[in-house]
Amino acid sequence: MPRFFIREDNIFSDYALIIGDDARHIGRSLRMKIGEEITLCCNNTDYICKIQSITDTSVRAEIMSVNRTQTEPDISLVLFQAVPKSDKLDFIVQKAVELGAVKVVPVITRRCVSRPDKKVFEKKRMRLKKISEEAAKQSGRGIIPEIGEIIDINEYYEQAKDFELNLFCYEGGGERLCDIASLKSAKNMSLLVGCEGGFDEEEAEAVINNGAIAVTLGKRILRCETAPVCAISIIMSITGNI
Amino acid sequence: MPRFFIREDNIFSDYALIIGDDARHIGRSLRMKIGEEITLCCNNTDYICKIQSITDTSVRAEIMSVNRTQTEPDISLVLFQAVPKSDKLDFIVQKAVELGAVKVVPVITRRCVSRPDKKVFEKKRMRLKKISEEAAKQSGRGIIPEIGEIIDINEYYEQAKDFELNLFCYEGGGERLCDIASLKSAKNMSLLVGCEGGFDEEEAEAVINNGAIAVTLGKRILRCETAPVCAISIIMSITGNI
Repeated sequence: MPRFFIREDNIFSDYALIIGDDARHIGRSLRMKIGEEITLCCNNTDYICKIQSITDTSVRAEIMSVNRTQTEPDISLVLFQAVPKSDKLDFIVQKAVELGAVKVVPVITRRCVSRPDKKVFEKKRMRLKKISEEAAKQSGRGIIPEIGEIIDINEYYEQAKDFELNLFCYEGGGERLCDIASLKSAKNMSLLVGCEGGFDEEEAEAVINNGAIAVTLGKRILRCETAPVCAISIIMSITGNI
Repeated sequence: MPRFFIREDNIFSDYALIIGDDARHIGRSLRMKIGEEITLCCNNTDYICKIQSITDTSVRAEIMSVNRTQTEPDISLVLFQAVPKSDKLDFIVQKAVELGAVKVVPVITRRCVSRPDKKVFEKKRMRLKKISEEAAKQSGRGIIPEIGEIIDINEYYEQAKDFELNLFCYEGGGERLCDIASLKSAKNMSLLVGCEGGFDEEEAEAVINNGAIAVTLGKRILRCETAPVCAISIIMSITGNI
């Protein structure tokens, strides 16, 4: 069944409205008809609906049943990703969303070659939000994972305080994910992954001193876009979410 | 230290020869000089060498020490990948090699849109072999993982007989990888992953009847190029190789 995310203020007591591009998509591309079923999703809740009317600007659908989305992991994992070159961040966002991350925050670390400021990055952030929404739709997520504003490592230290557990993929070595006992019980965690050049030794030490656990992803050298996909897969497996 | 794969017949008692493109690359791109150290790798063995002479067609290097490569997993995992659309197989080969697979075999399943025959696929296979070599170099592998000839599902059934354990990612559901007890002890296994359309129910049943264990990768729907990366990551973690 086709699946769309809608905003809370478009959900009413017994019907919901799909507006904008999605409405056009339902009528024109999917060629859906009145009476057909559609799933609308908002805040981890699925609304199974039946289409009542279709125009190019809005689709009205009767709410038939309401259920909590079944696909969300029971952990909240935020990926802090050092900004890589070219369009690798697009790829990383897509895969992190499929695998269950709740948010991706781009971070500027010492070895980042690309170092856009917040303003310049805003345009790219809009694109990443679209990629997140597309991946969330395709993979059946219950939320659209957020894309955070680009931050520097000091802001990472600040934000890291909000998590029960902070993990950090370090090519200089660390614990294996499956040996971290607290990973099995933590419900709220962050994962920091470096860019192509990885982490400068001094910076890695500072991240560890700030309370993050250094993690190894084995003896092979993973590309910076492979590392988060690998780490999130393993974390989701260990916590029972894959 | 720069790292190159060489053929066994270019290794002599106290020196080794690097010929062809790699020789040119060492002299022209890397601008290496006589006396500099280089790692040459052949059949899971690292030869630490010192460059003795450089021309555009060959580099001669003195063998200083010989060690078993430290990066190879202690399991042999062959990925049987149903052929996806466009260039997704390039991506899958690159990631499977980084993560430690020993071989990737393209398979034609019922739902494959792209269905090249063996001859037509040969050109693509040559490109995939290059991608495998590049990824093996970059990730520090001890071997260049093979790219098998393209096969149909019946040939998969035949080849599957050679493995202690055959796994099969099925969107129709299956066991969680971490619940498969034999995964912890098997040294020799295969993993079958579908294309965009996944597996036809009848085909899935036949694969299971042939002895493969159906595996789930959780409730979110992973793209066909994400599934093998996710599954190999988890398998390498469970078997102690990540």
